[in-house]
Amino acid sequence: MVPLSKRLFAETFGTFWLVFGGCGSAVLAAGFPDVGIGLLGVSLAFGLTVLTMAYSVGHISGCHLNPAVTVGLWAGGRFPVRDIAPYIVAQLVGAVIAAAVLLYIASGQPGYALTDTGLAVNGYGSQSPGGYAPSAGLLIEVVLTFGFLMVILGSTDSRAPAGFAPIAIGLSLTLIHLISIPVTNTSVNPARSTGPALLVGGLAMQQLWLFWLAPMIGALVAGGTYRWLAKEPLAPAIVGDNL
Amino acid sequence: MVPLSKRLFAETFGTFWLVFGGCGSAVLAAGFPDVGIGLLGVSLAFGLTVLTMAYSVGHISGCHLNPAVTVGLWAGGRFPVRDIAPYIVAQLVGAVIAAAVLLYIASGQPGYALTDTGLAVNGYGSQSPGGYAPSAGLLIEVVLTFGFLMVILGSTDSRAPAGFAPIAIGLSLTLIHLISIPVTNTSVNPARSTGPALLVGGLAMQQLWLFWLAPMIGALVAGGTYRWLAKEPLAPAIVGDNL
Amino acid sequence: MVPLSKRLFAETFGTFWLVFGGCGSAVLAAGFPDVGIGLLGVSLAFGLTVLTMAYSVGHISGCHLNPAVTVGLWAGGRFPVRDIAPYIVAQLVGAVIAAAVLLYIASGQPGYALTDTGLAVNGYGSQSPGGYAPSAGLLIEVVLTFGFLMVILGSTDSRAPAGFAPIAIGLSLTLIHLISIPVTNTSVNPARSTGPALLVGGLAMQQLWLFWLAPMIGALVAGGTYRWLAKEPLAPAIVGDNL
Amino acid sequence: MVPLSKRLFAETFGTFWLVFGGCGSAVLAAGFPDVGIGLLGVSLAFGLTVLTMAYSVGHISGCHLNPAVTVGLWAGGRFPVRDIAPYIVAQLVGAVIAAAVLLYIASGQPGYALTDTGLAVNGYGSQSPGGYAPSAGLLIEVVLTFGFLMVILGSTDSRAPAGFAPIAIGLSLTLIHLISIPVTNTSVNPARSTGPALLVGGLAMQQLWLFWLAPMIGALVAGGTYRWLAKEPLAPAIVGDNL
Repeated sequence: MVPLSKRLFAETFGTFWLVFGGCGSAVLAAGFPDVGIGLLGVSLAFGLTVLTMAYSVGHISGCHLNPAVTVGLWAGGRFPVRDIAPYIVAQLVGAVIAAAVLLYIASGQPGYALTDTGLAVNGYGSQSPGGYAPSAGLLIEVVLTFGFLMVILGSTDSRAPAGFAPIAIGLSLTLIHLISIPVTNTSVNPARSTGPALLVGGLAMQQLWLFWLAPMIGALVAGGTYRWLAKEPLAPAIVGDNL
Repeated sequence: MVPLSKRLFAETFGTFWLVFGGCGSAVLAAGFPDVGIGLLGVSLAFGLTVLTMAYSVGHISGCHLNPAVTVGLWAGGRFPVRDIAPYIVAQLVGAVIAAAVLLYIASGQPGYALTDTGLAVNGYGSQSPGGYAPSAGLLIEVVLTFGFLMVILGSTDSRAPAGFAPIAIGLSLTLIHLISIPVTNTSVNPARSTGPALLVGGLAMQQLWLFWLAPMIGALVAGGTYRWLAKEPLAPAIVGDNL
Repeated sequence: MVPLSKRLFAETFGTFWLVFGGCGSAVLAAGFPDVGIGLLGVSLAFGLTVLTMAYSVGHISGCHLNPAVTVGLWAGGRFPVRDIAPYIVAQLVGAVIAAAVLLYIASGQPGYALTDTGLAVNGYGSQSPGGYAPSAGLLIEVVLTFGFLMVILGSTDSRAPAGFAPIAIGLSLTLIHLISIPVTNTSVNPARSTGPALLVGGLAMQQLWLFWLAPMIGALVAGGTYRWLAKEPLAPAIVGDNL
Repeated sequence: MVPLSKRLFAETFGTFWLVFGGCGSAVLAAGFPDVGIGLLGVSLAFGLTVLTMAYSVGHISGCHLNPAVTVGLWAGGRFPVRDIAPYIVAQLVGAVIAAAVLLYIASGQPGYALTDTGLAVNGYGSQSPGGYAPSAGLLIEVVLTFGFLMVILGSTDSRAPAGFAPIAIGLSLTLIHLISIPVTNTSVNPARSTGPALLVGGLAMQQLWLFWLAPMIGALVAGGTYRWLAKEPLAPAIVGDNL
């Protein structure tokens, strides 16, 4: 087992990479005049942060980068309860640092102002990119986090082909963003929501509860569901052990 | 062999994922102002639903998610006839649930109305995105389903490199959409066509026959063709067995 | 060794898939109003035709789908001279059938007319999408075919990781299109150029010589170059043998 | 060990491919009217140059293609100091040739003029695509090169799944471009910056220092960091040895 200090460093840096890369592509490049990368580019960026980190540090920490993933793996019998809290703290630290670095860089462009949407925060209702109702936002975050965890639990199952899980998991996050950015700006990850919201404050903080609640529900249900689908004994507790 | 109940659950959830993800990206994100994902994003989304599910549940059910795939694998000597009907029912259930959940979420946007094209249904003639004639739609669905099954049968052949089939199969569905969304909105999958059509009704239901007929023809011909190309004995009956 | 009849069928169908998918995405979907896939989508489509076929029939024929690939593999000491002619004929047959089927489907849209650019033919000077001079077209086709063959020869080297060659080769074709569609509409494949040109005639046929000459030069130089880089004994004669 | 002459040839050709493909897609195709590939296409192109070369010549030279990668691998204890200088020279030669060939081809379009941005040079302040301040450019280049090296060092760790490193590394370069083209036109690679700058001269040369300094800082810090994360004994000195 890798020492906890190295595992937590991997989670902090990995979550930094996820938030800086995903939200950074949205803030800096999505709407660039004429040749901007759009929602498709942002979707690809989010997925590639996870794909690349899973190959880079999956063998160190399991590469969760997401409190809902940590909790969902526990629910699926694949992660020890004692490590949940430290993992989530490490993830939140990485997310906050990423939001701060991104803010510094974005401020390097003349005319940039940190508005309600200035750091790619998540939201519903008036804060939804497409103005979707809170119920729609809640439902889609539950459903997509459920699917995300199903992909994670299934692709790291000992019966799945070894080594491919980072591709499946990373590209499932791309898929999830392709569907749902207009609805909630896509979370499925409480850490990714919390980092930017802490810096933006206001409505982003008021709406943050949904982006903890919905992903956790989806993850817990997925953990229980896949446990039924799995073959005993369960695959290793750390995702990375099966990479 | 995995128990039938778990295999059918995998087919139902997997087909839900395919229809919710593929049609969802089309309905919610394709035409988003300025930064929409367009047909390229929708093509990627459809392919990634299959790629991700094949790694997630391929080892459980074979991850068909498509009646034409089930029938084509049978024609290729790789799937038992007794499981065809339950698989197809499970796929249809998943597709209908996906269309219903998508309708609920889409309705969360003020101004949304369930029109003829409101759930990314398939169509020809007046219902073709580009106004293509029925004969063009029929031919392209036959040809592309034939190619889709050739990729499935070939990449899961015991002579092909192990573990890569989900990438080849998923990205072939992306390719198929890149070619044919303007012609029929792309089916190659009767379940994907049936789910949205049941909720939309009207012309979508009247045109549904083509999206059962053409994919089935393509799949049956491919099954017979690859059987000639294959080396005896045939690869395992379940795609997932060779993942 | 797979019988020649099955290998030639694989080459014919594979080249059909390449030309139908690549040129089809360009003709049917690239310029679709508002949500068209653009040159990026066409680049992806061309690459995915090769990626998917290499996993599907690479173990049958080696999946060349391109006379320049066949000749380059021979120059690299990896393909027997006696099979060059049958492979090229099979590839040309597939390319012509693809162009004919594509023409039939495209004609299913009211208002379609087979103009000079109606089947995504290659060209230079006045027929170059961006109006590039013949010398620019010649040079870029030589350089990119050289690189394409380097990727093919290198990724199928016995020292390269097994199973990944279709990903490297397919995505290198995507890369090549991302660079050069504006210059020549991108060939690097005499069969891909010949199929559409035969149906369009006129200037497309007059300019076809360049899309045989340049790819062949690039392929021959690459074959010799990689032979120097390779370790004796050379990898198997058929690409698929090392997949 | 592969002879140095073959390794240097691989580095020269690989860096040629990176600069010609990445900058070429930007110059020739990014802004093509109506169907241009945009920053998303350029990001994909840069990443695919590395992905394809890593499978093609990774087993020959390790496929660095970048002085910062060479130095970072040395800092991580994975590359011998005596080969640093020859590798960097080989990379620079490839980059300059690529810029020259690209200039010749771009000049084949009537109306092309070699302006300050004519070869996709890197820049900050007035030369930044989005007008970002030098401090923003410096910080983002350090951060992204740090992440790039973390992906390289982690995915080639002996504990990571074998064979997937080129996918992780190539797509991390795509990710890096998705984030930062608007800020500096994205370097993370002094050779990629130097080739075009030498031909353009002027401000591009005056600003070149930042694109040596920042990537080297990021790479050195990453080398030291991953050395702490790694398990003794370290993985092989050449990336390709673990491909």
